[in-house]
Amino acid sequence: MKKKLIVQKFGGTSLSNIQKIQSAANRIKKKIKSGCNVVVIVSALGKTTDYLQSLINKIDINGDAREIDTILSSGEQASSGLMALFLNKIGINARSFLGWQIPILTNKSYGKAKILDINVNFLKQIIKNGVTPIIAGFQGISEELRITTIGRGGSDTTAVAIASKLHADRCEIFTDVDGVFTTDPRYVKKAKKINNLTYDEILEMASVGAQVLEPRSVSLAKKNNVPLIVKSSFRNIEGTNISKARKIIEKRNVSGIVFSKNDSKITLLGVPDKPGVAAKIFGSLARKDINVDMIVQNISVDGKFSDLTFTVSENDLFRAKKSINKIKKEVGIKNILPDSKVAKLSIVGIGMRTNAGIAEEMFKALAKEKINIDLISTSEIKISVLISRKHILKAVNVLHKVFKLSDKIKK
Amino acid sequence: MKKKLIVQKFGGTSLSNIQKIQSAANRIKKKIKSGCNVVVIVSALGKTTDYLQSLINKIDINGDAREIDTILSSGEQASSGLMALFLNKIGINARSFLGWQIPILTNKSYGKAKILDINVNFLKQIIKNGVTPIIAGFQGISEELRITTIGRGGSDTTAVAIASKLHADRCEIFTDVDGVFTTDPRYVKKAKKINNLTYDEILEMASVGAQVLEPRSVSLAKKNNVPLIVKSSFRNIEGTNISKARKIIEKRNVSGIVFSKNDSKITLLGVPDKPGVAAKIFGSLARKDINVDMIVQNISVDGKFSDLTFTVSENDLFRAKKSINKIKKEVGIKNILPDSKVAKLSIVGIGMRTNAGIAEEMFKALAKEKINIDLISTSEIKISVLISRKHILKAVNVLHKVFKLSDKIKK
Repeated sequence: MKKKLIVQKFGGTSLSNIQKIQSAANRIKKKIKSGCNVVVIVSALGKTTDYLQSLINKIDINGDAREIDTILSSGEQASSGLMALFLNKIGINARSFLGWQIPILTNKSYGKAKILDINVNFLKQIIKNGVTPIIAGFQGISEELRITTIGRGGSDTTAVAIASKLHADRCEIFTDVDGVFTTDPRYVKKAKKINNLTYDEILEMASVGAQVLEPRSVSLAKKNNVPLIVKSSFRNIEGTNISKARKIIEKRNVSGIVFSKNDSKITLLGVPDKPGVAAKIFGSLARKDINVDMIVQNISVDGKFSDLTFTVSENDLFRAKKSINKIKKEVGIKNILPDSKVAKLSIVGIGMRTNAGIAEEMFKALAKEKINIDLISTSEIKISVLISRKHILKAVNVLHKVFKLSDKIKK
Repeated sequence: MKKKLIVQKFGGTSLSNIQKIQSAANRIKKKIKSGCNVVVIVSALGKTTDYLQSLINKIDINGDAREIDTILSSGEQASSGLMALFLNKIGINARSFLGWQIPILTNKSYGKAKILDINVNFLKQIIKNGVTPIIAGFQGISEELRITTIGRGGSDTTAVAIASKLHADRCEIFTDVDGVFTTDPRYVKKAKKINNLTYDEILEMASVGAQVLEPRSVSLAKKNNVPLIVKSSFRNIEGTNISKARKIIEKRNVSGIVFSKNDSKITLLGVPDKPGVAAKIFGSLARKDINVDMIVQNISVDGKFSDLTFTVSENDLFRAKKSINKIKKEVGIKNILPDSKVAKLSIVGIGMRTNAGIAEEMFKALAKEKINIDLISTSEIKISVLISRKHILKAVNVLHKVFKLSDKIKK
């Protein structure tokens, strides 16, 4: 029988000291001894990348992205060597590989490069020779032979890209939590680990602020149908399985509740209700690289003016205001009302597709607690509302209870 | 007129924080603005290499040298990028280069690789294009496309090798001291900076323990006749110039006094005085990679037995004793007397070549202070003595005074 091929990715928190590196190495060894071929992807140790970024920030945060990538990629270089060293010590024939040594070819968008090609034949030959490759995550090489990085959290993407190209049986993402939770356990005591999720669910959860997996890596896994598992690198328990369709027998409408507290709202009063106005407003923001999230335009009563409300990241609020102010006169906006005290709360679940009553249940529960909803946006498997930031703790707990997320899953 | 080409090397202590990196960058800029082409070599920031080595030591100090080199070389990777970032910020068109990007080809002796070739045509083209190359020191690439390192202090060697190959006008080594001193200022208050030294003098000083320049880099500079300057990266003062022959008008017999306190002495009593015995003894040590420094064999009185005394590094004392013990019976050695409480003291100076009275002056001065001399070894420009470790402070001060090293140099 052909050996199973497993890609295992260890994040920085799983490699923050020698004991943790050892524990990760033992985990890899155990998997190999169980009869699998393993390909390992490592992040930089602990907070190494943050430290390097802090040095960069002190020098020139907007400096040459090629130099910044050279600096940042050094963290994964060290950790891949250290992991190979440890594995060799405990009897596993392992070897570190840097992005340029495989190579992992990317485009030239330094700092957020896209993987174009991976020399998998070389990796296959390495594996065939009985060597376990320890690949430095987050990095590649461009055609001009300079080191690239593929964005923060990029080691997840490296892992999924390698797993896809090698047609791995699965890709295991080891982290410092037990898996993906119904909501943030720091806010809801009864938050529970979710055993099974679909790619779409985790994508919606990630896009609204759950820092579990890099969204690009999930999209890539979905595209290539690579089974993902998020699990603890410290505790020996089952993690969260992520695949195309979770078992239908798990009856559940809402899978998780996610929220973000770094949103800000801008309301434009008295916006002329004529074609091209919205394009002008959002175009001016886009040109400043300001991402707009939720947008609601009130129906114009007199056919002449309407109100427009949208959200941006709190970091962008000042720049967004400034940008709108510049076109205020030209567009004919009467007033700009910024509000940085808002939070976005979302419920996500593949079951919502076929259950129309979920939204009503959510709004009712919030209304009962006298929590006002500012904005609403929905997708097929997600409902997001914008509420006052001071209500977030109460709101999450209420919804967690209403949707019975701490109950045992019915099968 | 052709622009001068200067190689500037900055060590870890010159790059231990953002202010120091900035100060080094400004120094580079000033040199460029004065009309020179500059090639920069950087070490890792501050104690980065020590930190990485400490991680390696915790895992497997005798592990795969290829992995260790991958780990250690990451420090210079980060610093080359950071320096390039800083220079670009202050208006200098600079670019980082890693060993594999030039490439600097070395042999496969990982951890202590020898530079075989440097693609200087590529570097010349870069310089011609108006770009200042910031080269990661200490690293290269082997023919099997893996990162190599060339030994601790290797950035000096990288700098001199680059300077040689580019036929640079000089190679400036920036460090945290003002230059090379007549002796260790921590021991002798009146120690003075030496303005001019020859390659041979600095080599003798380095080989007997002065941690100023990596000896291999000096040999390379001597071989290629590259003028070296050791100077402070913080203070704007002239450093120490090192060249083939220093100005004859500087009348000086002794240039400097150096000492090391990590020597140990082993005396073998009653060694049979017949051919092949010394070879057997030192062969057994060499096979264990134990370096023997000074050797003295007493004249055999009866023609049958003599005493043999030699020094090894204190770290090797135990292993040396063990090794001799193994052949004690076979060779017929009567007794082994180890002594770890010794120190080696040397006076170095090119003027000693033509002045026979120096040795006598040294021995007299020590005798006057009742400091006993255990062993003596000499070269053309150096006299070393082994004395009791407890006398070292007194001995250095006495000799510093006797040879008038704190006086103004007569011209």
